[in-house]
Amino acid sequence: MNDSSEQTLDDANMTSFDHIIINANLATFSKQYGFNSYNDSQEKSTPYGQLENAGICIKDGKIIWIGTHEQIKPHLSRYQNDQMTDAGGNWITPGLIDCHTHLVYGGNRSNEFEARLQGASYQDIAAQGGGIVSTVSATRAANQEALFTQSEKRLLALIKEGVTSIEIKSGYGLDLDTERKMLKVARALGDKHNIHVSTTYLAAHALPPEYKDCPDDYIEQVCQWLPILHSEGLVDAVDGFCENIAFTPEQIKRVFDVARSLDLPVKLHSEQLSNIGASALVAKYQGLSSDHLEHLTEDDIKKMAASNTVAVLLPGAFYTLRDTKLPPIEALRKHQVPIAISTDCNPGTSPLTSLLLAMNMGCTLFYLTPEEVLSGATVHAAQALGLAKKGRIEVGCDADLALWDIARPADLAYQMGLNTIQGIMIEGQWRETV
Amino acid sequence: MNDSSEQTLDDANMTSFDHIIINANLATFSKQYGFNSYNDSQEKSTPYGQLENAGICIKDGKIIWIGTHEQIKPHLSRYQNDQMTDAGGNWITPGLIDCHTHLVYGGNRSNEFEARLQGASYQDIAAQGGGIVSTVSATRAANQEALFTQSEKRLLALIKEGVTSIEIKSGYGLDLDTERKMLKVARALGDKHNIHVSTTYLAAHALPPEYKDCPDDYIEQVCQWLPILHSEGLVDAVDGFCENIAFTPEQIKRVFDVARSLDLPVKLHSEQLSNIGASALVAKYQGLSSDHLEHLTEDDIKKMAASNTVAVLLPGAFYTLRDTKLPPIEALRKHQVPIAISTDCNPGTSPLTSLLLAMNMGCTLFYLTPEEVLSGATVHAAQALGLAKKGRIEVGCDADLALWDIARPADLAYQMGLNTIQGIMIEGQWRETV
Repeated sequence: MNDSSEQTLDDANMTSFDHIIINANLATFSKQYGFNSYNDSQEKSTPYGQLENAGICIKDGKIIWIGTHEQIKPHLSRYQNDQMTDAGGNWITPGLIDCHTHLVYGGNRSNEFEARLQGASYQDIAAQGGGIVSTVSATRAANQEALFTQSEKRLLALIKEGVTSIEIKSGYGLDLDTERKMLKVARALGDKHNIHVSTTYLAAHALPPEYKDCPDDYIEQVCQWLPILHSEGLVDAVDGFCENIAFTPEQIKRVFDVARSLDLPVKLHSEQLSNIGASALVAKYQGLSSDHLEHLTEDDIKKMAASNTVAVLLPGAFYTLRDTKLPPIEALRKHQVPIAISTDCNPGTSPLTSLLLAMNMGCTLFYLTPEEVLSGATVHAAQALGLAKKGRIEVGCDADLALWDIARPADLAYQMGLNTIQGIMIEGQWRETV
Repeated sequence: MNDSSEQTLDDANMTSFDHIIINANLATFSKQYGFNSYNDSQEKSTPYGQLENAGICIKDGKIIWIGTHEQIKPHLSRYQNDQMTDAGGNWITPGLIDCHTHLVYGGNRSNEFEARLQGASYQDIAAQGGGIVSTVSATRAANQEALFTQSEKRLLALIKEGVTSIEIKSGYGLDLDTERKMLKVARALGDKHNIHVSTTYLAAHALPPEYKDCPDDYIEQVCQWLPILHSEGLVDAVDGFCENIAFTPEQIKRVFDVARSLDLPVKLHSEQLSNIGASALVAKYQGLSSDHLEHLTEDDIKKMAASNTVAVLLPGAFYTLRDTKLPPIEALRKHQVPIAISTDCNPGTSPLTSLLLAMNMGCTLFYLTPEEVLSGATVHAAQALGLAKKGRIEVGCDADLALWDIARPADLAYQMGLNTIQGIMIEGQWRETV
């Protein structure tokens, strides 16, 4: 334990906390408590930055003090029962962060899922108006309320498993009004459920039917819509799908230049199916994250390391697409690129609303360790969203916490389908229902 | 719709039902409504045996009448609100049946899961007392109450996703007292939660340390314990692990002969890692099911077809072990062997407590259709447990039902982590909490 946590409780104004948590084991993911993202040999590290038998004091939604249960014990009598949580020896992690989702969409694609398994080809399905086009149609057709209601079910599934911050992309509108509608629904979901929503403008997701054969004209529209939606407070970051079947690096660069002019951070769907220079581009723009990455090269990785760009891995899409090309995990470790894990929740390639299951897939399919996938859903996911005060249990950070009935942190990645959540705190407030 | 469903409500005594469900879409999995397990061309089939806009009348825990909502509408005024469920156009399936689980065990193995991902070999882990031996130790050490509490969490996770019947095996005791304790816990779980539990005696699961080097002596014990536990009412069926790393067909045969003398049905862990004749053996004993089956041959399949033995596929273990050898799905279809899907819930190779996720894995990993995996978790799972009155929505069957907020049955296999359950009925009673 370092100096900052050794401050005595006399130093803090013990009576002024809003809430105290006692008798907890903490997976802090904080360097202050020995967490080391890369497990390099240069530094002594504590797995998960764990602190056993600990207490947390909270004020105004922030973590103000962290120490041992023994230190806090003499002061307990000053607090009412409703200001105090006895964690009963259970584990607390930072609230989980799902940093890459397409959670807001209309309809679903279970009919295509079924048709493919009955023998239909992707071509058959496309010929019947299937694929992403069908989601665009359903999203355009849904009014804002219907879109909210459908998307809220998915959000609640994530929250029930401890997610307290989430990124939500547009990209099934592909016209100004529907992109706006999607981003408004994303904001409204965060407001209603009091969780942090980072919105991402992804109009450069696919070419809409009305711009067939003129992608550059569509990109021009994408560039024009961005300042409008940004001025309406709807955009926190800008994303694109840079791939042979989507947009070229040159086209994405035009969108990124507009983002830069607005001081908006960028990220990119990169190297999922091929390598056409997407991660190199996002690194050049000091992007927050580069996402998917099955076809990433070591040269790309060096650029990402230099630009401090997070590698967001999406095993749910890898699984659903039955991909066999693994992202270059060893090289990411070697160059100390932070790895995040996310659901990629979307109706086509990852109909997944369990970040815990994405973590299990990260271990089982990508051979990541439980510590890596948990840091990928907390501290590194926060970095991927540019959230400096989330994703860690540390003095000064937001009191976004998840309380779990588990024997050890690895349980969260090991179990499939067992939700051991006991409580979810968002900015100092326990949610009434879990 | 065939004759039996065309009976008018005047034929039934309309005032005598305990409960009626209206305005439902039913996935009946009943041949009476056109469900065909094999989709052969000889018979016109209705996917899922579906009946849209339907009603169900229930008495004494049984389904007494099924017909259209229109037929039932004129009689609604005779019923109180609490005797009536308006399904609101949602879908109802039979309650799901998880037909192969090792749900009762002590401890867990997340530490080994983590150690392997950190680079430890299976040999390293075995040398440290890991593997199944560690679960045997933890299960022996746990008292009945502790074992119940740990196992109940897993059962509740399954029930929350619509499971109304479950098979639970012994096999982590490997001594008389602990095998008894496991089976008692299994029975107690069923009693407390009012769900059907089929118990399976699996003392022939692994060789306990105290019988190292004398497997035949251990099998002798297994044969002696079976009549004792059966006489205590604890055994519904008999299972074994027939594999190079476990027991030979000759050893299993000795156990099966005792089972036959007690009139107990048999099943077997077969052809998971190799083919040493397990399914052929289970077919010879007219077994209920043969389970795992990655290394099954067409010759075995013909024997299973002749003995009406269900093929229970366990994609959670395939996934966790990163197996690449697919079970012979096409040949199972060709010979019309019923396919069931189960979680294989166990702490080593399938720490899975979501039958819905097992269904998704059946589609994604084994290329089964949504209809196949849903019939695998209902009608065929019932057959695998010898439950003649469960797994279908049909007049005369138990009123075990699951009500889902979905657009179509395929949604249940398509979604990962989204629990759309709205209600669970067991023998005519809705569970108070879902």
